[in-house]
Order: sequence, then C-alpha cells, then structure tokens
Amino acid sequence: MQHVEICFSPELIHLHELQGKIVVVVDIFRATSTMVAALGNGISEIKTCADLEECRTMASSDYLIAGERNGIMAEGFQLGNSPLAYLTGEYQGQKLAMTTTNGTLAISKSIGAEEILIGAFPNLQATVSYIQSREMDVLIHCAGWKGKFNLEDSLYAGALVKALEATHYSEDDAAIAMKSLYEKEGHDLKNFLSQASHAKRLQNHNIDSDIDFCLTLDLFSLVGKVENGILTGIKL
Amino acid sequence: MQHVEICFSPELIHLHELQGKIVVVVDIFRATSTMVAALGNGISEIKTCADLEECRTMASSDYLIAGERNGIMAEGFQLGNSPLAYLTGEYQGQKLAMTTTNGTLAISKSIGAEEILIGAFPNLQATVSYIQSREMDVLIHCAGWKGKFNLEDSLYAGALVKALEATHYSEDDAAIAMKSLYEKEGHDLKNFLSQASHAKRLQNHNIDSDIDFCLTLDLFSLVGKVENGILTGIKL
Repeated sequence: MQHVEICFSPELIHLHELQGKIVVVVDIFRATSTMVAALGNGISEIKTCADLEECRTMASSDYLIAGERNGIMAEGFQLGNSPLAYLTGEYQGQKLAMTTTNGTLAISKSIGAEEILIGAFPNLQATVSYIQSREMDVLIHCAGWKGKFNLEDSLYAGALVKALEATHYSEDDAAIAMKSLYEKEGHDLKNFLSQASHAKRLQNHNIDSDIDFCLTLDLFSLVGKVENGILTGIKL
Repeated sequence: MQHVEICFSPELIHLHELQGKIVVVVDIFRATSTMVAALGNGISEIKTCADLEECRTMASSDYLIAGERNGIMAEGFQLGNSPLAYLTGEYQGQKLAMTTTNGTLAISKSIGAEEILIGAFPNLQATVSYIQSREMDVLIHCAGWKGKFNLEDSLYAGALVKALEATHYSEDDAAIAMKSLYEKEGHDLKNFLSQASHAKRLQNHNIDSDIDFCLTLDLFSLVGKVENGILTGIKL
C-alpha cells in the first residue's frame, strides 16, 4: 500500500517531503473548484500567476484573466473567482490566467513533487481513480486561509483520505483526524461549514450558490494536472 | 462572551495575536502532563529550559533536572519525561528544571500573552474553572510534533473548547474542527490515538502506563501558570 498525508497550510509545507509524491493542492473556496469548473467547461489551459500584475500582463497573450483578492474580483479583470461563470460554456477553447489569495501560493510551493494535481469536490472521484492508477504516495496540500488551517480544505482532504483507503494507509495525525471528522460531518458539509470563518466571509459576498457548487461531488470526470506552471484537464 | 481559538503548531503561532489573551500551552505526550503531575505532587516550581545544556547547569542551583529528546531520557539527567516518576511524592518541596522536544519551545513562543497556562487532561476542569474566573480570550497553543499537527494535543484543545462553550464562542476553523472531533472520539481517546504517530512512538518505548495517565481527566485541582519563565501550581 501507499501512504497518504495532509499538510494543513503552505506555511507548514517545508516540513513535508515532496519528492516522489503526488501532491493534491486544495483551495475549496474557491480557486481549485473554479479551476475544475473551467476545465470541465472547455477552458483549454490555465496559467496560475503569483500576483495580479503578472496575471494582468497575460491579457496581451490571448488569455482571459481572472483575479480576486479577499474574495472580490480585482480591478481590470474579466473574471473573478466564481466557478459559476464558466458553466455556460461561453469560454470554450480559450486559455485562462488566474491568480487567487491562497491557491496559487499553494501550487507554487508544491514544486518538487513528482506530480501536482488540483483537487475539488466536483472532481473527487476522478482524482481518486487517477491516483489509484499510479503507485505513488500522496500529500494533500491545503491552501488554508492566509497561512492558517481552514475547515473546507481540510474536510476535502479527509474525504480524499477516506476515498483512498483501499490503496493508501495513513499514519499521519492530520490524515487520521480529518478522515474521522469527514466521517462525522461529511453528510451535511454545508451546515457544518456554515460555522466556519471562510464560509461566513463568502456569505457576506452573497455567493451562496458558489458554495453549493463547491460542495457538490463528482460533476466532472476529469483530473486537473499542473505541468510547467500550466494546468490542464485530463478526461477520464 | 469571550473567544477561543486553536493554534496547531509553534510554526504557526506568528499568525495569531497573543496580546491580551490567556494562552494555554499543550503537549499531552508528555511535557505538560508531566508538569501537572509534578506540581500536583509537591514540586514547588518548574523552570522550563530551551535546551539540554541550560537545563544541565541548573543542577548546581539545587534543581532536579529532567530532560528528554525524542521520548528518551537524556544522558546525565535525573529524570526523563514520565509523569509517573512524581506520583510517589518523593520530590516534595523540590524545584525542577525541565526541557523537552516540543513543549518548552511552545512555552517560549507564547511570550507576549497576558497569561500563560500549561494544560493537560489531568487538570482540564481546573483550567476551565480558572479561565472562566477571568474575562479574557483564549488561545490554545499545541506544541505539536517537530512543527507538525499532532492528534493528542489537538484533541485536548477540542476538549477545552467544548468545556468552555458556556463562556467562550468560536469562529476559528481549527476550534470548530477539533470540538467536533472531540465530540466524536472523546469517549475512547486511547483507542483513537492508538492510530496516531506519536502514540505509536511512545508504545515503542514501552510506556503504555504513561499514556493512560496522560489521558486521565481531572486528577488534580490545580492550574499551571508560567510567570517570568517559572511555572508554579495554583491550587483551586
């Protein structure tokens, strides 16, 4: 069997070995959920940018540009960080450049891994199937919120640990904790998360339907994989 | 109402405001449990030392010296980190100097708080009563294991959040997660923790009875409080 572990924040990633592992980067509200929605609706590739400036310059290279800071669309950008914007399919075939508060940082801090995937509830089962087709240890890298633990990323991590249990054991305390918590709270995630700080922030921005989307399982049968800074979808 | 939050590791403590708060430092296996056992059995004060060298020099100032690294008594020390060593009362009235892998670091990184307490299951209710007699926000600072999240410290934190719920609310994701996990797993901590990495390490050192002690609730009606680097017990 392979091993699975969880890192709760990019601030702790230096304590983990990346080499030889599949790292699954998670930023449920909303970066990685939006990435999966975009790839599932015809966006051909996503370039993740470290900051708004770098992202802005991509507009001149035929990229759509999407950027938010603290949950709000950044000035001069065509798209914010809502997954729902992609569901109409109107951006089919286009390339997207994207920067977000926490998600992009977690991806860039995952460099050194054998493979970098991005994970979200809407493609959980596809990610499980892909991982189980490879024989590698897994590290789930939660983007967190400004360096701190956050509930939605960690619960996704618990869901993934549980879904992998036929092939991946865990002696990692974080994985044991989050698997157990997901077993308890997974049947009604939205209600449980409604207590959480980040969900409250999102409610303040009136994006309740974004939350519903981000917590829906298995809408897309594709895996998001980052290579050389470019994220593409692999259809299963 | 006051607020309660959890920091999972000294590596994340810079993300938290300490000022004006009661910080409860937790290192269940075994530093803070041993401190409570020592204070509950007549040790008059405990000096926490940053390293083995500093601790060793305290022997010449009439201190008993206790030190471990990676769970094993350090060379030249009179005591390791077992709480059971104090239960006979043979060290009554003596002063103790102590250094441990993770616990001492968490205490030194808590400087700046209004008050620093040390917490353990054997004095949980006393700590709750003391906190509820003050009107202050609480930050539970888990010592973790070499910078990482650990299960036993975090579950104690969840138990404390739950025990404080009449007076302390929480919008902190870590506190919400650990309170829920403690509600699920708190009735059989030893069994749940037997999966955990640190408990496994301790079992390898044949200290099963230490684990039993560290997970026993409310043996002592005293609070451990650090002032100017010296820890003393306040009897309630």
